Amino acid sequence: MSAEIICVGTELLLGDILNSNSQYLAQQLAQLGIPHYYQTVVGDNPERLKQVIEIAISRAQILIFTGGLGPTPDDLTCETIADFFGVPLIEDPEIIEDITEKFAQRGRVMSPTNRKQALIPQGADILPNPTGTAPGIIWQPRPEITIFTFPGVPSEMHRMWTDTAVPYLKNQGWGQEIIYSRSLRFWGIGESALAEKVAPYFNLPNPTVAPYAGKGEVRLRISAKADSETAAEALISPVEKQLKDIAGLDYYGADDQTLAAVVGNLLRLSGETLSVAESCTGGGLGQMLTDISGSSDYFWGGVISYDNSVKVGLLGVNPEDLDKFGAVSATVAEQMAMGVKTRLSTSWGLSVTGIAGPSGGTETKPVGLVYIGLASPTNEVTSFEYRFGGMRGRSLIRYVSANAALDLLRRKLVVRNS
Amino acid sequence: MSAEIICVGTELLLGDILNSNSQYLAQQLAQLGIPHYYQTVVGDNPERLKQVIEIAISRAQILIFTGGLGPTPDDLTCETIADFFGVPLIEDPEIIEDITEKFAQRGRVMSPTNRKQALIPQGADILPNPTGTAPGIIWQPRPEITIFTFPGVPSEMHRMWTDTAVPYLKNQGWGQEIIYSRSLRFWGIGESALAEKVAPYFNLPNPTVAPYAGKGEVRLRISAKADSETAAEALISPVEKQLKDIAGLDYYGADDQTLAAVVGNLLRLSGETLSVAESCTGGGLGQMLTDISGSSDYFWGGVISYDNSVKVGLLGVNPEDLDKFGAVSATVAEQMAMGVKTRLSTSWGLSVTGIAGPSGGTETKPVGLVYIGLASPTNEVTSFEYRFGGMRGRSLIRYVSANAALDLLRRKLVVRNS
Repeated sequence: MSAEIICVGTELLLGDILNSNSQYLAQQLAQLGIPHYYQTVVGDNPERLKQVIEIAISRAQILIFTGGLGPTPDDLTCETIADFFGVPLIEDPEIIEDITEKFAQRGRVMSPTNRKQALIPQGADILPNPTGTAPGIIWQPRPEITIFTFPGVPSEMHRMWTDTAVPYLKNQGWGQEIIYSRSLRFWGIGESALAEKVAPYFNLPNPTVAPYAGKGEVRLRISAKADSETAAEALISPVEKQLKDIAGLDYYGADDQTLAAVVGNLLRLSGETLSVAESCTGGGLGQMLTDISGSSDYFWGGVISYDNSVKVGLLGVNPEDLDKFGAVSATVAEQMAMGVKTRLSTSWGLSVTGIAGPSGGTETKPVGLVYIGLASPTNEVTSFEYRFGGMRGRSLIRYVSANAALDLLRRKLVVRNS
Repeated sequence: MSAEIICVGTELLLGDILNSNSQYLAQQLAQLGIPHYYQTVVGDNPERLKQVIEIAISRAQILIFTGGLGPTPDDLTCETIADFFGVPLIEDPEIIEDITEKFAQRGRVMSPTNRKQALIPQGADILPNPTGTAPGIIWQPRPEITIFTFPGVPSEMHRMWTDTAVPYLKNQGWGQEIIYSRSLRFWGIGESALAEKVAPYFNLPNPTVAPYAGKGEVRLRISAKADSETAAEALISPVEKQLKDIAGLDYYGADDQTLAAVVGNLLRLSGETLSVAESCTGGGLGQMLTDISGSSDYFWGGVISYDNSVKVGLLGVNPEDLDKFGAVSATVAEQMAMGVKTRLSTSWGLSVTGIAGPSGGTETKPVGLVYIGLASPTNEVTSFEYRFGGMRGRSLIRYVSANAALDLLRRKLVVRNS
């Protein structure tokens, strides 16, 4: 038994809109524990839609359609489905009444084209649309096939799914077994290196473990099938612990936790404050930190020292060292970190200076070379050199640089606290 | 002749990620005039993937795969395709060399699992991946079938598509009749207000004009169908001019031009420099400015004055005014702008202070209240009050605030130069 998602709409084939409905339905099906192996997108074309239905009923039993329920002539999902199963459409008086009333509420009269939305296959049930005019259907054209149709407007679809489809599916016995996932996040280790370390876990049957690469980071997704969230948690929890133990300091957080959030929590715990001095990230590090609501508890601010004059004037970097070592150097990174810490009177000072490219690289200092400086509460200053490689592009180099700075501070805080 | 998009990845079936690759490829196919009637999503499962290929080759001639090219065991797109067509995989020494070099650039050694990424079907051509380790292939396993594979990481896929797939397809004769679009960008006017001003243009047959609401901005997309870019340009150009004339100062740029880029060009033209003082944006304004390569010509840096002590200490804001008017006030915005301009010795100083929320709002100073200050080369200081509304959420309020600051400076520069 499995479900298939079929999104109907020429606007999807033209790339005019992003198919967020597939993602929503996929998440919902996973939560209900309904297996789902295929998603299809097809245009507003009856012949092609029929072919898609033919294929779908050969491999799935629950068919979920979105889109093509509107009042215009190109909306033909419902009539094409009825036609495929050889069942006539009939006008449903309840729907006519509902649409008439909705128009009246907005002080309008139902236009004749809207009558089309009241046509449903004989024997189908209405799937009410509380927030729009186009209702869907729940229909078993054959004993083994269940069809759901939804309009393409995401907000209407979500409401209809939650209000009607979920209770219906639970009533059919679904949702007894759910799929529950946790995503573990790692910084400072590549996908293949991490995969090698945790390779045996990829063969687990339940929970399953799978790696994927994100923007400069790697994630391991642990997914458990169980009859409740608590039971799923009990399956996930020991594996999560083992994976964290194997990864050690390379693990930094789970699910929606960013490096900035993790660092923020650690600083709040220790009652310490942070300031930043940014060159190549140009404010991006500060932005990440202040993305977190409440970050004013520990983040005091910083200096964007894009021009060397600002490094000297506002951060107290030694002009001779700037000349001698260059702005992208360990020495300057350290002086920036110490400078911002001192001037802003914070516990920690964190700095980034590098070559984000695409221009500005040299043989000895290529694009992607970045120095991160860290000044500690006891005024120890350290710096680290990173080579992110020019091929990543300016935007990603800047993103990875800011995160590498956060990761460096995170490791210091974790090691000190442990 | 048509193309089919096949996205491979269990993470798509679980709803873990949004399928933006389909939208990108759909737009690209439309631009090249390549018909495309179906999109399919399937998990990392060889048997199901083979079924999808079987169906796809019965109805399309160009098969475009994304996802499943990584180094881990669940990445099996390439080997499954080869297996389907009964062709062996061979290790390509060029790819091994390329991956080894990319690892070396980052100071790492290629791990054995990455060797897998060098396996391609015998007879297939490499589709180089300049920004990642997983290359794709271009392959004609049968005379009438062309296969492209791409990694699932969007940035890598986009680059590979543009650099290699597009020239290849154009060489095959595609892209003779093209759809060519220009997106005009507007700041400071709502979608419905702009739509009313330009309503007659929505009925044009070629080029067509359609409005889109973006993140805090409105766009008008002008799309022309023609047999060359020059012919399309000739259709678009007069309409573009008329729309710009109607919109006046609310128009700021086209296509990929950001407000930061437009402001940067204006500053470069006038040989002036800029510094920023940021409170609620926390570095986001600086980041936008430095997203532009070469911004060091006019952007010198700034101060992230998240905590009030930094406003006083580094920007010279009067502590009594801070007490009297609060950090989110016209007075403080003006002192921040003047302070950063003076301390960094730039032509212009631009400041942002506001309440990004979700907490921190009051009756008189609600979430979304933002003041922007601007200090001019002649030391005139002005400030403007914005009310972006609490419902937009922290992240969007910060984004809109930084852009509103850039827009304010843009208008000053345009008016002065005209």
